[in-house]
Amino acid sequence: MTFAAAHVSTGDTAWLLAATALVLLMTPGLALFYGGMVRTKSVLNMLMMSFVSIALVTVVWLAAGYSLAFGDDSGGGLIGGLHQAGMRGLGPDSVHGTVPAVLFATFQLTFAIVTAALVSGAVADRTKFSAWLVFVPLWTLLVYVPVTHWVWGPGGWILDRLGALDFAGGLPVEITSGASGLALCLVLGPRLGFKKDAMRPHNLPMVVLGAGLLWFGWFGFNAGSALGANGLAAAAFLNTLAAGCTGLLGWLFVEQRRDGHPTTLGAASGAVAGLVAITPSCGTVSLLGALVVGLAAGVVCSYAVSWKFKLNYDDSLDVVGVHLVGGIIGTLLIGLFAEKAMTGGAEGLFYGGGLAPLGKQLLAVVVVAVYAFSVTYGLGKLLDKALGLRASEEQEHTGLDLTVHAETAYDHGVLGHGAPVGASVRSPSAQKVTYQA
Amino acid sequence: MTFAAAHVSTGDTAWLLAATALVLLMTPGLALFYGGMVRTKSVLNMLMMSFVSIALVTVVWLAAGYSLAFGDDSGGGLIGGLHQAGMRGLGPDSVHGTVPAVLFATFQLTFAIVTAALVSGAVADRTKFSAWLVFVPLWTLLVYVPVTHWVWGPGGWILDRLGALDFAGGLPVEITSGASGLALCLVLGPRLGFKKDAMRPHNLPMVVLGAGLLWFGWFGFNAGSALGANGLAAAAFLNTLAAGCTGLLGWLFVEQRRDGHPTTLGAASGAVAGLVAITPSCGTVSLLGALVVGLAAGVVCSYAVSWKFKLNYDDSLDVVGVHLVGGIIGTLLIGLFAEKAMTGGAEGLFYGGGLAPLGKQLLAVVVVAVYAFSVTYGLGKLLDKALGLRASEEQEHTGLDLTVHAETAYDHGVLGHGAPVGASVRSPSAQKVTYQA
Amino acid sequence: MTFAAAHVSTGDTAWLLAATALVLLMTPGLALFYGGMVRTKSVLNMLMMSFVSIALVTVVWLAAGYSLAFGDDSGGGLIGGLHQAGMRGLGPDSVHGTVPAVLFATFQLTFAIVTAALVSGAVADRTKFSAWLVFVPLWTLLVYVPVTHWVWGPGGWILDRLGALDFAGGLPVEITSGASGLALCLVLGPRLGFKKDAMRPHNLPMVVLGAGLLWFGWFGFNAGSALGANGLAAAAFLNTLAAGCTGLLGWLFVEQRRDGHPTTLGAASGAVAGLVAITPSCGTVSLLGALVVGLAAGVVCSYAVSWKFKLNYDDSLDVVGVHLVGGIIGTLLIGLFAEKAMTGGAEGLFYGGGLAPLGKQLLAVVVVAVYAFSVTYGLGKLLDKALGLRASEEQEHTGLDLTVHAETAYDHGVLGHGAPVGASVRSPSAQKVTYQA
Repeated sequence: MTFAAAHVSTGDTAWLLAATALVLLMTPGLALFYGGMVRTKSVLNMLMMSFVSIALVTVVWLAAGYSLAFGDDSGGGLIGGLHQAGMRGLGPDSVHGTVPAVLFATFQLTFAIVTAALVSGAVADRTKFSAWLVFVPLWTLLVYVPVTHWVWGPGGWILDRLGALDFAGGLPVEITSGASGLALCLVLGPRLGFKKDAMRPHNLPMVVLGAGLLWFGWFGFNAGSALGANGLAAAAFLNTLAAGCTGLLGWLFVEQRRDGHPTTLGAASGAVAGLVAITPSCGTVSLLGALVVGLAAGVVCSYAVSWKFKLNYDDSLDVVGVHLVGGIIGTLLIGLFAEKAMTGGAEGLFYGGGLAPLGKQLLAVVVVAVYAFSVTYGLGKLLDKALGLRASEEQEHTGLDLTVHAETAYDHGVLGHGAPVGASVRSPSAQKVTYQA
Repeated sequence: MTFAAAHVSTGDTAWLLAATALVLLMTPGLALFYGGMVRTKSVLNMLMMSFVSIALVTVVWLAAGYSLAFGDDSGGGLIGGLHQAGMRGLGPDSVHGTVPAVLFATFQLTFAIVTAALVSGAVADRTKFSAWLVFVPLWTLLVYVPVTHWVWGPGGWILDRLGALDFAGGLPVEITSGASGLALCLVLGPRLGFKKDAMRPHNLPMVVLGAGLLWFGWFGFNAGSALGANGLAAAAFLNTLAAGCTGLLGWLFVEQRRDGHPTTLGAASGAVAGLVAITPSCGTVSLLGALVVGLAAGVVCSYAVSWKFKLNYDDSLDVVGVHLVGGIIGTLLIGLFAEKAMTGGAEGLFYGGGLAPLGKQLLAVVVVAVYAFSVTYGLGKLLDKALGLRASEEQEHTGLDLTVHAETAYDHGVLGHGAPVGASVRSPSAQKVTYQA
Repeated sequence: MTFAAAHVSTGDTAWLLAATALVLLMTPGLALFYGGMVRTKSVLNMLMMSFVSIALVTVVWLAAGYSLAFGDDSGGGLIGGLHQAGMRGLGPDSVHGTVPAVLFATFQLTFAIVTAALVSGAVADRTKFSAWLVFVPLWTLLVYVPVTHWVWGPGGWILDRLGALDFAGGLPVEITSGASGLALCLVLGPRLGFKKDAMRPHNLPMVVLGAGLLWFGWFGFNAGSALGANGLAAAAFLNTLAAGCTGLLGWLFVEQRRDGHPTTLGAASGAVAGLVAITPSCGTVSLLGALVVGLAAGVVCSYAVSWKFKLNYDDSLDVVGVHLVGGIIGTLLIGLFAEKAMTGGAEGLFYGGGLAPLGKQLLAVVVVAVYAFSVTYGLGKLLDKALGLRASEEQEHTGLDLTVHAETAYDHGVLGHGAPVGASVRSPSAQKVTYQA
């Protein structure tokens, strides 16, 4: 879909450069958000699952993912072609809209990265690291790339043919990662001690820091999706802020009523739930719509995160409860709150558009959720047979940090806070791993 | 004050989008800066005071705050109107200067957020959380919004009528938060153990991280206040960097001479003091002026933070010593160092402008400080009567994290660093709070 | 080299404003990256070495550094003049290319800052703080400024005369800091316990956070070096991401094969190695070249960091192994992978340019490395004689935090994690340092 425009706009390009850097920061932000939530013995493994996703998805994206997602449609709006595999033809002078084509491809790459990393939250503390290294590239090609083509690819069936709306990724990012997280945690089974041990977050300031960086980066994600520095980007920006706020308030409100105390983890989670939900809708709904989207997500997700205890799936860090549920809320509510001033045409039920838009959103949601769940479930089963998807019981019990990475996150031994364990020195000759398998 | 221009500049818009994201990041940055300075038992409460400010101020701002601050003057330059309440009329196509109007409104919102959060530093470790939730919206409407209208509103009495100068918020942000912090900590009274216990920062790397994020965000705050990507923004940027540097050096110099050792807390505080002081002056003074402003703030504030021990007000994290004092320094020094090349007209005493500019700055400082102090003091007293402003002695002693939020910041129990306390799991069914009141 | 253009481009300026803020954030990011790697007893000192570099380099740069680096050549391409000392003539209206001149000067300042801070990694845990305060300004003037003039100054001998290439600072930033780190750690001698004690990183999540912020900031560093919002910036951006990824993968691959486990420290180090190597080449090589540059750096540097144990120099945090070696790799590989579409002319060996480009790169590398090493070694020896460069044995043993800064990084005493030590309260009257010399 790269085409020549009259010229590259330096202003649009300036914003998209900044936005791309912002979205890339979301993955380290997510790593900390997740890392703070797990127990001390596996925080590094959690960070690693995000960081290797940056590297693995980048390689896959440059090799073929970008071309399959955004290349010319191969027919039916289902998948792109391979004409731009290896980023062929994307020199510094290629243009996409009003920005350099290579910048558009890189901006989209950062979306693919964070989506893969999101899945890791569902399978924390028990995934075999080597299997994760295989899962991420395959999942990106089999799930993220096709869904992205359906939504944003030229001729994709969801936006271009069906006429559903998704501004910044409710379908390819939130619903896809959420449904895939559910599938993968079902394949893996629950953590040892699930529903018995408390498994408290080991470091809540780290969670808050992660949430702060995520929110910051999300402005690049959502307002960057306008692909230019204009009023639509500004409106998407404000909607993003507004929904994060009402998400936070909604979640805390439920906690206060239900549990008697508003928690820091709830504030961080509520903000993220609001941000998840506004992702598809930020550039399509009115400000009032954004406030409602965020509030709905904060309230509903604050309940949804406890479904796992009733239904017995160990979605460890609530990818289902926040990203799947929040993504569905935000994608569906477009059907109610879409506003002509934002969409340039389509209107939701509350603005006179009737029920058809809601139906289109619903269809897209169902197909994407079912597709992502099914393919990921199949892929997970396959990898489990071929490689083993789950770490050994002993590794899980001792913690993946020490047993897989030969490290421990913290070593305050010098100040007398307990004896040093593990080893992590940047040299083979100085490695003295104390762990004995 | 929204008006149509010939067109939106994509370059100006690109910078203001990035700057708005940067300023929003300052509040999480401030949360960490403050959170690292308190004791382990109330770090989460400190983080929460900042995070809920994001949500509460946003709602108030969108509902009425923006309109009252930046809407057409209601007479006398004292307050705006309600024509733009609920952001009425601010669609994606509205323009303010050369940027989308909704972007201008959002940029200004991020200022209101961080200002409310700043106040929390004065009342750390002992404020009733529910009272804070009521205080923030009222304070924003009663203090932040009017002062902002005086300074930057169309027809505001300070800039438009008196002709004083304030580029990025010495008056509405720094002096207002500082004077209000003083008022509120007087209403609350000192922490248990004030002047007896050491109350050391529990995590200085977290303070340094917070200071780093604040500094980073401050470039959006100050250089973004040029509302465009131009030479004035660039000069404000450099002045911001320069003053942070001399602030840091000034504070460390005093520490070394006075105490015999330069501290990390001093370096972080000195940088922030310099940044506070340059906020009003960054777009009005020469580079030499900026260096002096920062140095003066670093030196003076390094003494000012100990006044509380002599005068017996427990401004816990030095909002008075840094923001009130630093804000006054920076606002007054405009009267000396304002340079025509920056202001486009007005000049300070040292550049041939005589004493009049200094007098105007002084008048503005006094009125804003007295207004903010008085209204906040009254509001605090009122809330104290109506709701109770202070946490119970037992809560304060045990720590607000466990007693109010049912959480503890850290849980390293797995590695044998002490038995787990508290509870923070993102689900009601798994909540097992060990705290017994 | 400031000259008037037809006009300032707001788009180019918007990107460079954002990029400058991003590069400034790299220094706090580096502080955390380094701070997490040292032991608990000296983390604050490590943070301080970076933070004071911000202040000291800024003062030196504004006073004379900028003018000497970027002012008109004084003859032979060796050094600039003093015409712009004190930033004379750089008002808000001065223009450099298509951006405000003061912005260009500030952007370059942020490079000088982080380069000085980089050197501190080689001399962690044992450097006298007062000597560091003297070293940084002198080193900036004697090493960073001349090399920068050679490379990017008007008429500089390396780019303008020899015709070698360096897009974003392989020579002035990476090789200079690496060679200087080697010189300085040789002057200082190894830490107490070098090669005996494990000296594990005290906080690996802090290292990962630092690496994440560095990577984020690096986009400003590299893509900002295009000095505009255009296709070249976009291509440099993607190359930066790509090389960080293959650097990470390369390092982990070696670790897995050699040590049997991929470490978090390795992932962070590999990404940084890739980013170091792509710095000179990001705007000159093809995407394939970038992938190879990153991979080569990841693999080679993962070995290079252990040379210190064989050759007995205590480059504590591997400035030599990562920045010198990575910088050399990236600078030399330009000679192989330079692509006309990126450089606008010059081509590397693999694209038909013959061996001459490689020769030019090699010459530049050797001269810069030898110059930086020699001058730093001399300067170090001089300062060691004049002031003493090394902290006392007792300070080093107890930790610099407590003995030099009268602080400890963490105080979790309240939760029973051991008795409080040290003191860090922001006021002289409350200081009660428990350390007894």
